[in-house]
Amino acid sequence: MHLIIDGFGGNPRILESEELIYQVLDHYPSRIGMTKIAPPYVFRYLGSKPEDWGISGFVLIAESHISIHTFPERCLVNIDVFSCKDFDSEQVIKDIQAKFELTELRSYLLDRGLEYSHKEMLELERL
Amino acid sequence: MHLIIDGFGGNPRILESEELIYQVLDHYPSRIGMTKIAPPYVFRYLGSKPEDWGISGFVLIAESHISIHTFPERCLVNIDVFSCKDFDSEQVIKDIQAKFELTELRSYLLDRGLEYSHKEMLELERL
Repeated sequence: MHLIIDGFGGNPRILESEELIYQVLDHYPSRIGMTKIAPPYVFRYLGSKPEDWGISGFVLIAESHISIHTFPERCLVNIDVFSCKDFDSEQVIKDIQAKFELTELRSYLLDRGLEYSHKEMLELERL
Repeated sequence: MHLIIDGFGGNPRILESEELIYQVLDHYPSRIGMTKIAPPYVFRYLGSKPEDWGISGFVLIAESHISIHTFPERCLVNIDVFSCKDFDSEQVIKDIQAKFELTELRSYLLDRGLEYSHKEMLELERL
């Protein structure tokens, strides 16, 4: 399954922290039963517009990944949690909302795994 | 926008090539107007089941990423092309289908960018 989260109104001090993004990518997989296959990779970048700078990070987990892109000036974060194993998507949404102190959040859940099956995209929550 | 592709029936000799996955991640962003902000990262892994081994790769592009997960024994590939800039998603689908010699492909397109906007998930093609 693939959980897509776009979070708004987040705390810029959290969103601008490379260290915190690294920690989330490093520790969160095991909390939801995923196995990292390599250390996280976190990168600070500058966009073409001054307000577009931010932190991008990802971690490879068995067969899939977690990615995070933050935009501190926009109080925005885009997160993907993609795993061939099922996980508790509602708990992940709650954890992400708390971690980044989001005031608004949109999420989508895609049934996407190793088998060839009918997939459905569900809009889980619009907080 | 975020294009999600699950490809089936691909050529295992292509899907098992770390070098080819690296080349795709290295060269493809510029073909669709994206700017890499770091070199690709490609990793070969073994799953808990013998048939679950494969190649996982990732490249960060400005504000977003491209990821590829292949499963040569299953002739399967999962690809995400996520960019804050628009790109020609139908061309990407055609390129991916040709590159991995896919016999079946499912794709979803999510309107997902820097702005807070109504998003829609569209099923583009079911080949």
